[in-house]
Amino acid sequence: MRYCLQCGHEAERKIPATDNIPRLVCPNCHYIHYENPKVICGSLVVHKNRVLLCRRAIEPQYGLWTLPAGFMENGETMAEGAARESYEEAEAVVINPHLYCLYDIPDIGQIYSIYLTELKDGAYGIGSESLDCALFTEEDIPWNNIAFEAVRRTLKSYFEDRQQFDSLDKFPIHQDYIGKDQSIKRY
Amino acid sequence: MRYCLQCGHEAERKIPATDNIPRLVCPNCHYIHYENPKVICGSLVVHKNRVLLCRRAIEPQYGLWTLPAGFMENGETMAEGAARESYEEAEAVVINPHLYCLYDIPDIGQIYSIYLTELKDGAYGIGSESLDCALFTEEDIPWNNIAFEAVRRTLKSYFEDRQQFDSLDKFPIHQDYIGKDQSIKRY
Repeated sequence: MRYCLQCGHEAERKIPATDNIPRLVCPNCHYIHYENPKVICGSLVVHKNRVLLCRRAIEPQYGLWTLPAGFMENGETMAEGAARESYEEAEAVVINPHLYCLYDIPDIGQIYSIYLTELKDGAYGIGSESLDCALFTEEDIPWNNIAFEAVRRTLKSYFEDRQQFDSLDKFPIHQDYIGKDQSIKRY
Repeated sequence: MRYCLQCGHEAERKIPATDNIPRLVCPNCHYIHYENPKVICGSLVVHKNRVLLCRRAIEPQYGLWTLPAGFMENGETMAEGAARESYEEAEAVVINPHLYCLYDIPDIGQIYSIYLTELKDGAYGIGSESLDCALFTEEDIPWNNIAFEAVRRTLKSYFEDRQQFDSLDKFPIHQDYIGKDQSIKRY
């Protein structure tokens, strides 16, 4: 059972008159509760030859490594969201953001937008949602302990593009689809 | 006053313990109601030398011209959303989608994603949310009667890029910010 946000009455799932998709609708005040995909904003933070990863202190995927990323908030741009998450999860101030990866994950109603950024002054810490944060070279990336497929693909693309392009602002935008089984197994 | 979706109790706006932004929180069942930006998916549908516009039969901006576009739904990709909207608003089957424009509109909590597509077999009609649909050459675009700034910018970019690139799949992705006064005046 679900209730109406507007009036508190019991709501029902039905297709509104002007629509073709079932929605949660209130039979009392007629308010329609739309549910739409959510946007994740994240940052691939680069410093010299290394990239910044955070070890998750929260579920899902507790203990695995990820990029600083989280749900976009109202009132911010995607780049601002990526910068905010970098600070919250790794106390990293990031500069020169460029949109880098954009993933559709329709099975869970999400879009991932990852910005390529640079770490200001090489400074970072450990945010409250992280067990640890560290800069990794390509050789040291913990590939068997990456939290999400979107993170793995972003890292793969980055190390490939780095062979081909001599500055971050020349990196192309990668757009891709991620299916249902998007997270790797935890070890 | 707002009510809890989960239990129907009166909800209150406060900052949850593990958060730093005010949310609608239920004091009874502790459910947190997150509100996040919404994604608009749209299509710049090209056929030969012309582009497809729809005259809006709904508010806001009733009577003005727009691209087929609307809120992205759960379970679809951005490109699928752009194709769905093209069919709903203009009975247009579109092929060869490429992400073309991506706009942050933080003041209204929206992201606009516009795909460059091609009209299959040149066929289209008039969807239920449109008063009219038509293919326009650059000279015939009704610039003084365009519904939204995102639509205007997309059209401007398209006619500029067309001078420079000889096929649609070479067009670059344009990313931009649109401020508060995003709609033009209605005539």
